[in-house]
Amino acid sequence: MAATLVSSNRSFRGRQSVYKHASATTKCEMTFGVYIPDHQPEEKLPTLFYLSGLTCTHANFMEKSGFQQFASKHRIVVVHPDTSPRGVDIEGDSDSWDFGKGAGFYVNATVEKWAQNYRMYDYIVKELLEEVAPSVAPIDAARVGIFGHSMGGHGALTIGLKNSSKFQSISAFAPICNPITVPWGQKALSGYLGEDQSTWLDYDASELLKKYTGPKREILVDQGEADNFLGQLKPDTLKATENAGVTVRMQKEFDHSYYFIASFMEDHFEHHAKILKAI
Amino acid sequence: MAATLVSSNRSFRGRQSVYKHASATTKCEMTFGVYIPDHQPEEKLPTLFYLSGLTCTHANFMEKSGFQQFASKHRIVVVHPDTSPRGVDIEGDSDSWDFGKGAGFYVNATVEKWAQNYRMYDYIVKELLEEVAPSVAPIDAARVGIFGHSMGGHGALTIGLKNSSKFQSISAFAPICNPITVPWGQKALSGYLGEDQSTWLDYDASELLKKYTGPKREILVDQGEADNFLGQLKPDTLKATENAGVTVRMQKEFDHSYYFIASFMEDHFEHHAKILKAI
Repeated sequence: MAATLVSSNRSFRGRQSVYKHASATTKCEMTFGVYIPDHQPEEKLPTLFYLSGLTCTHANFMEKSGFQQFASKHRIVVVHPDTSPRGVDIEGDSDSWDFGKGAGFYVNATVEKWAQNYRMYDYIVKELLEEVAPSVAPIDAARVGIFGHSMGGHGALTIGLKNSSKFQSISAFAPICNPITVPWGQKALSGYLGEDQSTWLDYDASELLKKYTGPKREILVDQGEADNFLGQLKPDTLKATENAGVTVRMQKEFDHSYYFIASFMEDHFEHHAKILKAI
Repeated sequence: MAATLVSSNRSFRGRQSVYKHASATTKCEMTFGVYIPDHQPEEKLPTLFYLSGLTCTHANFMEKSGFQQFASKHRIVVVHPDTSPRGVDIEGDSDSWDFGKGAGFYVNATVEKWAQNYRMYDYIVKELLEEVAPSVAPIDAARVGIFGHSMGGHGALTIGLKNSSKFQSISAFAPICNPITVPWGQKALSGYLGEDQSTWLDYDASELLKKYTGPKREILVDQGEADNFLGQLKPDTLKATENAGVTVRMQKEFDHSYYFIASFMEDHFEHHAKILKAI
């Protein structure tokens, strides 16, 4: 169904807008943000999808990261969805901050209780990318990248690696690199996918990189050394795959906050712009 | 009393911190934020005070403006206080969003009910600038500027003009330019100062500029053309004083939000850096 404009603010040389729409994938109303640089009629622009972390909505990134400056400079559309369905109430979806609302983990749930709505993987890869976002923004489908933070970094890595024809560039801030081995990931993957751990592998960036055979990727990852969640994130596991094109930069003194993300936003835009504008 | 650290995050090449302290001026606990670029021991840095608008705390600016990037680049300390006392409850201080808590208007109240605590003018100019901020940050007292947004733009203009030996550079985003003539200003000034309007003139930027005889100032003001509050802000009144060194730039399509502030933050830092670093 058509997206409805919720808000729109002039920001640098473009506009930061928020839309809502009825989602066929999650079967409830979804909200997302989009930054659109000034452009000519009919002009299509390279586009980045940004996936947020646990507890975030679409809003944290647009209010706290300062990304608009660089999206404006490089003339890149940025689409930033919510982190879970919110227009439906399921028993247990609000009991903890790392499961249910605000914690969709970018998977398609198969456990019956969640399977009707918690389909953030298909929501991003199919509905938002292919239908809804192009209905409101001048997206050049041949030049699309993906990035994200923490749980959203996990989403960006897994979605990007599994859909290399749709996403040409990938990066992440402090991603959950190996969810099958850590409490956050185990709770989410068992909850949404059930106890058969073989089904979890398909949503684990480190596992996907081991067997990745797609086009060569240069993946940029920044990770703060003072991040309180290093035990959940496991950057070392990802670093071990650097031969697969992943560069993990450990950043001294930085934590897990948006102050960390904002500090390296410019580098991530330069990473994506270089790749997407060469296409 | 000594300031206590509330939080500290690495941000660009410096740290964004928050402190609280018992204020002798407002007779309650006050919270403020400060960004400190990396520096050598004993090194003193140019410093900016940022005053926020109605309803804001110290936090909006540090979370939404993206200023840290430019404070880091220019190596400028930035101190950003709250907008009113909050550690005391006075009947009527929370009845409206444009008076009382979150709306101190940077005056020294003389109406008895408010006069003990609502002394944000002295709090900024004396206690924070001269005692508390220098106790936590490497402030070069000879190179200090002031800027702010909306009510805080009014605060920056009036405080800056009245204390030209303490503040060497001034700018504002969408300031309240002529508060004695508009509803926000009339409500605040009558509430804090009483009905004798002659006492209000000392807190009105346009009136102060008419009789300003201090050192030459180049004051930068940005104002969005799509700002919903133009009737309260009255940029035209300030524009009429441009011979006094005020440049008012009207910015097409921009509104009153932090998206507007963020879009022109770089220009304001360049304005202040040019002046402060030439001293």
